[in-house]
Amino acid sequence: MTLLRLCTLAGSLALTAPALAQQGTKADAATLAKIKDEGLNRSKVMETAFYLTDVCGPRLAGSEGLARANEWTKKQLTDWGLTKANIEPWGTFGRGWDIDKSYVAMTVPYYHTLIGAPKAWTPGTNGLLKKSVVVVKATTEAELDQYKGQLRDKIVLLSVANAPKPSFEPDARRHSDEELKKMADFKPEAPTTPRPVDAEAEKRMADRKALMAVRTKLADMLVSEGAAAVLSSRGGSDGTFFTSNGAPYAADAKPVLPELEMAPEDQLRLIRLAEAGIPVQLELETRTRFQTQDLKGYNVVAEIPGTDKKLKSEVVMLGGHLDSWHAATGATDNAAGCAIMMEAVRILKATGVQPRRTIRIALWGEEEQGLHGSRGYVKNHFADPATMQLLPEHEKLAAYFNLDNGAGKIRGIYAQGNEAVAPIFQDWLKPFADMGATTVTLRNTGGTDHLSFDAVGLPGFQFIQDPLDYGTRTHHTNMDTYERLPADDLKQASVVVASFVYQAAMRDAKLPRKPLPAAKPEGRM
Amino acid sequence: MTLLRLCTLAGSLALTAPALAQQGTKADAATLAKIKDEGLNRSKVMETAFYLTDVCGPRLAGSEGLARANEWTKKQLTDWGLTKANIEPWGTFGRGWDIDKSYVAMTVPYYHTLIGAPKAWTPGTNGLLKKSVVVVKATTEAELDQYKGQLRDKIVLLSVANAPKPSFEPDARRHSDEELKKMADFKPEAPTTPRPVDAEAEKRMADRKALMAVRTKLADMLVSEGAAAVLSSRGGSDGTFFTSNGAPYAADAKPVLPELEMAPEDQLRLIRLAEAGIPVQLELETRTRFQTQDLKGYNVVAEIPGTDKKLKSEVVMLGGHLDSWHAATGATDNAAGCAIMMEAVRILKATGVQPRRTIRIALWGEEEQGLHGSRGYVKNHFADPATMQLLPEHEKLAAYFNLDNGAGKIRGIYAQGNEAVAPIFQDWLKPFADMGATTVTLRNTGGTDHLSFDAVGLPGFQFIQDPLDYGTRTHHTNMDTYERLPADDLKQASVVVASFVYQAAMRDAKLPRKPLPAAKPEGRM
Repeated sequence: MTLLRLCTLAGSLALTAPALAQQGTKADAATLAKIKDEGLNRSKVMETAFYLTDVCGPRLAGSEGLARANEWTKKQLTDWGLTKANIEPWGTFGRGWDIDKSYVAMTVPYYHTLIGAPKAWTPGTNGLLKKSVVVVKATTEAELDQYKGQLRDKIVLLSVANAPKPSFEPDARRHSDEELKKMADFKPEAPTTPRPVDAEAEKRMADRKALMAVRTKLADMLVSEGAAAVLSSRGGSDGTFFTSNGAPYAADAKPVLPELEMAPEDQLRLIRLAEAGIPVQLELETRTRFQTQDLKGYNVVAEIPGTDKKLKSEVVMLGGHLDSWHAATGATDNAAGCAIMMEAVRILKATGVQPRRTIRIALWGEEEQGLHGSRGYVKNHFADPATMQLLPEHEKLAAYFNLDNGAGKIRGIYAQGNEAVAPIFQDWLKPFADMGATTVTLRNTGGTDHLSFDAVGLPGFQFIQDPLDYGTRTHHTNMDTYERLPADDLKQASVVVASFVYQAAMRDAKLPRKPLPAAKPEGRM
Repeated sequence: MTLLRLCTLAGSLALTAPALAQQGTKADAATLAKIKDEGLNRSKVMETAFYLTDVCGPRLAGSEGLARANEWTKKQLTDWGLTKANIEPWGTFGRGWDIDKSYVAMTVPYYHTLIGAPKAWTPGTNGLLKKSVVVVKATTEAELDQYKGQLRDKIVLLSVANAPKPSFEPDARRHSDEELKKMADFKPEAPTTPRPVDAEAEKRMADRKALMAVRTKLADMLVSEGAAAVLSSRGGSDGTFFTSNGAPYAADAKPVLPELEMAPEDQLRLIRLAEAGIPVQLELETRTRFQTQDLKGYNVVAEIPGTDKKLKSEVVMLGGHLDSWHAATGATDNAAGCAIMMEAVRILKATGVQPRRTIRIALWGEEEQGLHGSRGYVKNHFADPATMQLLPEHEKLAAYFNLDNGAGKIRGIYAQGNEAVAPIFQDWLKPFADMGATTVTLRNTGGTDHLSFDAVGLPGFQFIQDPLDYGTRTHHTNMDTYERLPADDLKQASVVVASFVYQAAMRDAKLPRKPLPAAKPEGRM
């Protein structure tokens, strides 16, 4: 309350850390300076990122890579002096899946190796296939029917929605001052305001649903018609392609064909040749491996114990998801976030901070399939959003901070509609104004694990990050690699996060919360 | 002369085609209008580009792809009604080389398919290799020596000069008005002006030479030490990698190891792992095939015969090189130029033009290894620059127009220091001002086949083209594919070229020439 009032009064005055210390937060300027010094001058964040990406490898939910990352992070956090490091199951996920071989090339009309990767959870080809191709373009069931009898023993080529072309826009960018000001000025709509109907958006949604239905029917038809395999492409350019799953991860999922996601340049060449009536032959071999012994999903957690007798039972959490897609090492999605969160707790340990509250890091599993790790954790520890029956730990959580919007430095934080917390964050950002982190917005942001906390009325927040090339080049692609991590951005983010966590651990009161949401029996967030 | 004076007087006045027709060029406005109509409204340039790229495939000097392209273009030009279509040998080139298989993957510490391609003229692996890696970083002979005894049976990883990173600049761009104005304003230096010594450039050149010497010694050492294969990377990003040759194409070239050029992201991952002491194993199989039966190189030529009794023995030539590098289909380098030149003669045939002079298209072979096709042709038909003994055809060549700077539309033409020709070109560009082609520069431009003509005092010219993503993304990369060809740019270029060729074929006089150069016995251009 003191801080809140102070902020309202202080307006745009730069509030120094010593002043903060006198106003009810026990964070002191000397510690903040130590955090910056450790994080900027003795950073280990790139070393951590190297281990998460290159050494552990792709970290698909349920894969061996994710298991390696779980083990490595647990050990590393322990080595840094954190306690209670644990690979904690959150519930049942589904089958594990790994790639043991992936090779595809055109052999007729001439030899050309193709760039692609198996879609997650698709089966292998059971040896080297040598087959001709057929192009299937269907947006309706009637169009699908025309392919009956033509697919047996063929490699099916599905169309590419958008062909690559010379790009006149840069891949990477940073938020402009104007964009940040717009975010800062954002006022949430009154919840009673009826939203105008967006007819175009509704039509797009309906079209997409119809297309998905055709795609599902196609998948069945490919199996029943005896096609050999599928090559598809969700887009990308320049050798970059987008990846996703080609089959459910559920242990009882029905069979599908081997399917690869392809660089659109290669896919389009095959399609153009086939459509011009030129015979095309491919050779294709994939070996994939399912793991059904352990269907559980896991999160990695570890703690820096609190030191204040009264407050140490309260917890400040920070986290990001450790799982990734499978065709790259998930550097920006989300080794970056995990490396930064790990670096933040390393910095806090290295600077000898004595936090009043307990600090707990969580590296989530199975985020990419629907925030499963964090949702499971929240349900096990805090509350099930379907019932909103609160567990005892619910009142102990002071805050949760998440990082999962790529590798760009922190420019501020989404207050997620929590008006009471905004001025606190504005204060906490002040020491980082010269490092580009200035903006608190009341806007919600979605798509990642803070939502699991927000859904049960806990104060969960995602930072605003510079977009860099996350949306254009790395997010869910085969090019989400270590190169995409700018060291200076990761170092900056590490010290901002360490400082926020420290502030939240030292503050007299937990962070203010929004009113508890109603139970959502259907489970939607 | 008349035309020259007129242009000087006309200044910035838009000179209409009928006005031109009255001034000594027999080109008429109606024909120019027909050329535009045919080229813009009934274009076949993209169909031609599709056949050159996707259907013929990569067209490395001496390869089967280039042989397919030679046959196809000869037939297509004949089908369009050109005469004397011929695949004409220009001399001895060297060995042919084709890829029959290319597969490389990391298998330890986890499976990951790698993006790469064999370097041209390297041998295959003779089966599937399963080997561990060693990183070799050496810029001096002394550093090289340290690797003795460590290379046997290993796959050698050479370093990557520049790591990819998030890109804040667009790949593609067009010439700005300012750039074009600077080109137009360019005044050639008086040839007597002594050039200032550029110490930095000289140092860079010396460093490069030294590095090349070390690289040559390394290649020998890898063979003598019994290494298994080499992975290298000249750069690129996002799945795009640059390609070149890894061994000479000469029939008597000494043996080298199998070598692949890799996407830098993949190469860097391997290097980071190996340098961190983490065991890395690869599996690698390449099969390449040498052809030594026919060591000759070829150009494809075809004609539209002249109709003026006096002038039909004179020739206007246009061309581009048909060969490409091997890891893509050479779309911008230089299927684009060939497709545009072919489209220009198709347009001229389709519009029923009766050119006074003979028009001859030439699609050059073996440009990438040193303009061999055009140099051989010029030596056989016009003059050897080493002796400057002129052959009878030398005086018959009215002009040569070349296109080989990517797929960008034509913005003007390099007059190659020929001051007398500049005003003629300024006139010829006027009908295309509304299509962005406006600029005549006296600047020289290098790097392609017009130089072979210029070297013996013949008027050979390359057009100014919008750069698009030629320098950043497509030139000599695995991503030089059909997608990189914007149809509107190719159509525009086709009508500009058709019009220039038509004007040169109709004009009373051949294009003015620069003074004959002195003989260059050492053969340098």
